[in-house]
Amino acid sequence: MSLKNVLDASSVAVVGASRKETKRGYQAVKTLIEEKFEGQIYPVNPKEESILGLRCYPRVSDIEAPVDMALITTPAGTIPEILVDCGKKGVAGAVIIAGGFAEAGEDGQDLQGRIVEIARKNNIRIIGPNTSGMMNLRKNLNLVGLRDVPRGRIALVCQSGNMALALITEASIKSQQGFSYYVGIGNEADLKFHEYLEFFQDDPNTTAILMYVEGMRDGRKFLQQAYQTTRRKPIVMLKSGRSATGKLSAGSHTGALAGMSEVARTAFRRAGIVVIDNSDELFPSAETLASLPHIRNNRIAVLADGGGHATIASDNLTDLDVDIPPLEEKIRERLRRILPAGASVRNPVDIAGGADENPGIFADCAEILLHDAQIGGLLIVGLFGGYNIRFAQSLAFVEEDAAHRMGKLVKATRKPIIVHSLYNFARPHSLDLLRYYNIPVYDSLEVACKCMACLSEYGHYLRSYHAREKFVFSKGRKSRRRGREIFRRAREEGREALYEHEARELIGLHGVPVSRTYLALSEDDAVQAARDIGGPVALKIVSPDILHKTEAGGVRLNLKTASEVGEAYRAIVEGAGKYDPHARIAGVLVEAMVEEGLEVIVGTKIDDQFGPVIMFGMGGIMVELLNDVVFRVLPISERTARRMIEKIRSVRLLNGFRGRPPVDKRAIKELLLTVSEIVGSYEDIQEIDLNPVIVHDKGLSIADARIILRKDKGSNNW
Amino acid sequence: MSLKNVLDASSVAVVGASRKETKRGYQAVKTLIEEKFEGQIYPVNPKEESILGLRCYPRVSDIEAPVDMALITTPAGTIPEILVDCGKKGVAGAVIIAGGFAEAGEDGQDLQGRIVEIARKNNIRIIGPNTSGMMNLRKNLNLVGLRDVPRGRIALVCQSGNMALALITEASIKSQQGFSYYVGIGNEADLKFHEYLEFFQDDPNTTAILMYVEGMRDGRKFLQQAYQTTRRKPIVMLKSGRSATGKLSAGSHTGALAGMSEVARTAFRRAGIVVIDNSDELFPSAETLASLPHIRNNRIAVLADGGGHATIASDNLTDLDVDIPPLEEKIRERLRRILPAGASVRNPVDIAGGADENPGIFADCAEILLHDAQIGGLLIVGLFGGYNIRFAQSLAFVEEDAAHRMGKLVKATRKPIIVHSLYNFARPHSLDLLRYYNIPVYDSLEVACKCMACLSEYGHYLRSYHAREKFVFSKGRKSRRRGREIFRRAREEGREALYEHEARELIGLHGVPVSRTYLALSEDDAVQAARDIGGPVALKIVSPDILHKTEAGGVRLNLKTASEVGEAYRAIVEGAGKYDPHARIAGVLVEAMVEEGLEVIVGTKIDDQFGPVIMFGMGGIMVELLNDVVFRVLPISERTARRMIEKIRSVRLLNGFRGRPPVDKRAIKELLLTVSEIVGSYEDIQEIDLNPVIVHDKGLSIADARIILRKDKGSNNW
Repeated sequence: MSLKNVLDASSVAVVGASRKETKRGYQAVKTLIEEKFEGQIYPVNPKEESILGLRCYPRVSDIEAPVDMALITTPAGTIPEILVDCGKKGVAGAVIIAGGFAEAGEDGQDLQGRIVEIARKNNIRIIGPNTSGMMNLRKNLNLVGLRDVPRGRIALVCQSGNMALALITEASIKSQQGFSYYVGIGNEADLKFHEYLEFFQDDPNTTAILMYVEGMRDGRKFLQQAYQTTRRKPIVMLKSGRSATGKLSAGSHTGALAGMSEVARTAFRRAGIVVIDNSDELFPSAETLASLPHIRNNRIAVLADGGGHATIASDNLTDLDVDIPPLEEKIRERLRRILPAGASVRNPVDIAGGADENPGIFADCAEILLHDAQIGGLLIVGLFGGYNIRFAQSLAFVEEDAAHRMGKLVKATRKPIIVHSLYNFARPHSLDLLRYYNIPVYDSLEVACKCMACLSEYGHYLRSYHAREKFVFSKGRKSRRRGREIFRRAREEGREALYEHEARELIGLHGVPVSRTYLALSEDDAVQAARDIGGPVALKIVSPDILHKTEAGGVRLNLKTASEVGEAYRAIVEGAGKYDPHARIAGVLVEAMVEEGLEVIVGTKIDDQFGPVIMFGMGGIMVELLNDVVFRVLPISERTARRMIEKIRSVRLLNGFRGRPPVDKRAIKELLLTVSEIVGSYEDIQEIDLNPVIVHDKGLSIADARIILRKDKGSNNW
Repeated sequence: MSLKNVLDASSVAVVGASRKETKRGYQAVKTLIEEKFEGQIYPVNPKEESILGLRCYPRVSDIEAPVDMALITTPAGTIPEILVDCGKKGVAGAVIIAGGFAEAGEDGQDLQGRIVEIARKNNIRIIGPNTSGMMNLRKNLNLVGLRDVPRGRIALVCQSGNMALALITEASIKSQQGFSYYVGIGNEADLKFHEYLEFFQDDPNTTAILMYVEGMRDGRKFLQQAYQTTRRKPIVMLKSGRSATGKLSAGSHTGALAGMSEVARTAFRRAGIVVIDNSDELFPSAETLASLPHIRNNRIAVLADGGGHATIASDNLTDLDVDIPPLEEKIRERLRRILPAGASVRNPVDIAGGADENPGIFADCAEILLHDAQIGGLLIVGLFGGYNIRFAQSLAFVEEDAAHRMGKLVKATRKPIIVHSLYNFARPHSLDLLRYYNIPVYDSLEVACKCMACLSEYGHYLRSYHAREKFVFSKGRKSRRRGREIFRRAREEGREALYEHEARELIGLHGVPVSRTYLALSEDDAVQAARDIGGPVALKIVSPDILHKTEAGGVRLNLKTASEVGEAYRAIVEGAGKYDPHARIAGVLVEAMVEEGLEVIVGTKIDDQFGPVIMFGMGGIMVELLNDVVFRVLPISERTARRMIEKIRSVRLLNGFRGRPPVDKRAIKELLLTVSEIVGSYEDIQEIDLNPVIVHDKGLSIADARIILRKDKGSNNW
């Protein structure tokens, strides 16, 4: 169901409307009237006849005409009854302001469950609860009570009322860009982040989506949607709750789980989202992405008047991985012709006082720089807009002319300009002109640099966009009959994990060569198996009741002769009996000893927000010493598998370190892809732990494999 | 010589004074008059009789009365002659505005050398050249041409004119704190960073020093001075030129070497300087440190109205290593009594709408929190100052009362409060009141958090201040006669490095046990030496002409019998002859084989800015794989030596990793201190390279030692 009737509602009932001026129910009605909502307003309050000149209804179901939306301002306890009544009326959506739900402990959680159930039954979509409301600024549908919100092309989705207030305030005092919609996500009880994305993706009045997120209830659906949306328009996001204290704070605020930060960050980036860490940069980044063309090649020019800002900009842009390439000689020559002798015509270009009598020189330089094919965008830092203040008033007209020229230059070249100016605070006309041309102007050098980097990052994403990063599993389609049997049997036997040989078999079924193993049920079996394998073998106990095999004396390595094998078999069985007399023993696994190579680890687990994630890490000393691992949300594409391998800090160990031949990275990649496929193919898997995996010059050997079963099979939503 | 006559000059000659309004020489005179300079102004221009009503002199030496300072606005080429004339007059200092010196290539460098020489001869101290000027704001001595600079207690030392303009503009529009002095460092040709520090340290009107630095000519002197200064007042610094492009930009700007960023950063921190990376945070940090008491225990409380800001503040403060401890139950109980039910009384405290009708609750909470002994400071985030805008105008008075109470609270408790407010832009009276009480108010949550962290960092430095971090060598006092002999002989023989056995002997002389080595001059010598050592030995060629011993077949390891030793001796000598028939051969070194242990590396080199620095790193695979090394400016204290060891990323390898016993960290520390002492004791050392050093459970062995001699011995200034 589309959210059209909800977010573009033509009629609104205000439940809890009031005549008391301090009440939200009064302010809600007043705001709708004063902001000139284009549709019908129906105050609802059994105790009043009329409010602010509008007829008041006892209940929503008493309203004669159709009602799209209900804004409910009454306390938590009253909500179920009101929703039932809204259902009678066929209301499409409800904004529930009240707190006291999932964020407020168990009782609140139960109540939240109840209202979601009622809403589902009655086909009502809920925004909130515990939300500041929503706004559709094109229709003047303002259900928040904030006034004079600047209109523009940014859709704002926010999980904090005061962050929304901060962002809206910033827009109205510092920008000419504003908002198309605002949604306060609140507890995300019914309508979820991804559903809003889907709506804004198709909204012609929205060119960028700005999100503040504390925690998501369905991160996987969000990624699936975001990956679609970012192909059409940029998403800028700040995700808070990185720190332990931050997580607690977010939890007490919206009742959401903040999840694993690093998993979230890379997952959002893979879906094309521009992730922001500093809240000062959040609105500017969205403003820039909503207003300017992105950068096509990550190569920009910096234009400064004076060395300090040029130096700091260089440092910042370098930290942000934006390239500031040296200019070609023909471009330098053109710049030299118009700049004073002390100027620097490398990149950054420092006009060194060349604008003191003629700030028009900024536009001259901008034209030369943006017409250079290798330059994808221009950052101007310093005093532009203030030469009339600093030097002579008459320069104002020259600056205004330069602003017009730069504005047209952006249109003509489809390359962005961003301006940092010390004089932004004075709001000189030239800077307002730049804004008119959608060129953002910032007081902060750091913010200006970051915005440039956002244009570059988003441009890079679109250029390198890869159709297979959909975050969608093939859900069972690639499962094998034998694989399903393995899981079924383990379930039937009430086990919590597969046996190691089953885990190996499963991996083998999906195409990764695994060495042959035998489940020996007697000493003779074991000796025969060792003979078949040829070469030294390892023996391992197989028991659903013994998790720590080594502790139980259940592992013997490097057995070379029949008598060694026989002795080991007896010792293992005997040891297991001593370790736990009640342990069920399924047999003893006989496998070939693994050849030498480099230890790595591959594993999967299930994240609160995103469902299954995969981990790849360097094994042995590196994982213990440096925790040298990377995580990705599953499933992964071939490209992501390759990137995981390259992202490991000690990747040089894989590449033929110290004269050793390189190990088989292709085999690691295939293993990662196979594990991804397996997790997607069977719903039974809680955790996979392949540790260690020994990688050779050619191929790899899985030295130990563990697959733990899900307890709540079937409840997954990924 | 004190800088009193320079920075507190009572009379100023303006050389190049002009009647033309666009000339710097006109503006300079006009500014001094209009800003009401308390002393005498003497325009100097041979072509004019008077300027702006003041009598004009042909030359400085023509002025009858004493002249403290000359502000020289004429071009580079005219400076030498003018300085000579100033010298005749006994002028104490000169500000040289012109560029065209060291920043402009070789000719400029020569010219700079000349003017420095003239100045020295004539007892004139130079500010600049290539500077925007200087200001003493208490005396209205304004040699910059910038007007309306806010007065206050921050001394600003800046190596970029546009950064100075940016910081001064920021102060005047956003703060009530301002400046006591401003100095544009320019090319730092004569007066250097550390000399200004020394002056400001004793200035009673300065409570904090704010620095923007691109490159320093004498980093070591600066550290020595800074370590003194930071005990008296805080220094806040942004050092740019981190990136390669930034370094180039800085170089073309001031001609300074930007040096090694990481060495600089830790050195500044060791000297107690608060190092800032983001230019948005630079003035606020100085303002905060100039205005508020520091935090004594790194534990702060956060007070918010709404979850979003609380969560982001938690994330930021955690990243900045500031502790936000949970509150004790008795404090929580007190808060509960005054806050609404939905409030959170952990830390951060979220008043959750509790101020909508009474923002005075902020002061109530502040009193409870700052009177808690475990809380060292308070950060208030959100809407304070804007409740009258957001809710009801009458709340303005309540907010103003709260501001008075919080201001007095800071005075009474000597604990800081910093406020972040969305409504700062509207300049509500309550926020001006906070500023009156020296409580800074920021629009940016990130900036507010950073300022809190600065108070904490500076407080921590003062608390943990360690008298031995003086960055001063004992300069030869600890040298040994035998050590001096070793260097003398190497010099006499025209060698570039010590022989390995000499390097070992030198280290042994300073107290680190080194295994005995023998320089064998014949096969018999070698065999006898091996017998004396007992156990397996290594043989190494000793030749001033063979640097890469292994390549020349000059190293044989693990020799156990007399015949093995004899054979190895012959092979080495023969191999060396083949490798280079002209190589001088001093003998063959016989040493005991080193026992097993953990490989580390210790080295020293000479940094452009700071002189000798020491490096400690994990050896073997770690240094190649992760470049796991730390640097410190020498000399180091025992505490710094310990910290270097603990800062290594793979430090856990030292601490008894995987069941191995811990290695002897005390021995490493002693080695680092000894190397520090050796570098300080002999002026001959360019580089030391002890690689590898094998650390055992007890003690360590230096497996290879190289000491390279300085070519320019005696030119050092550290």
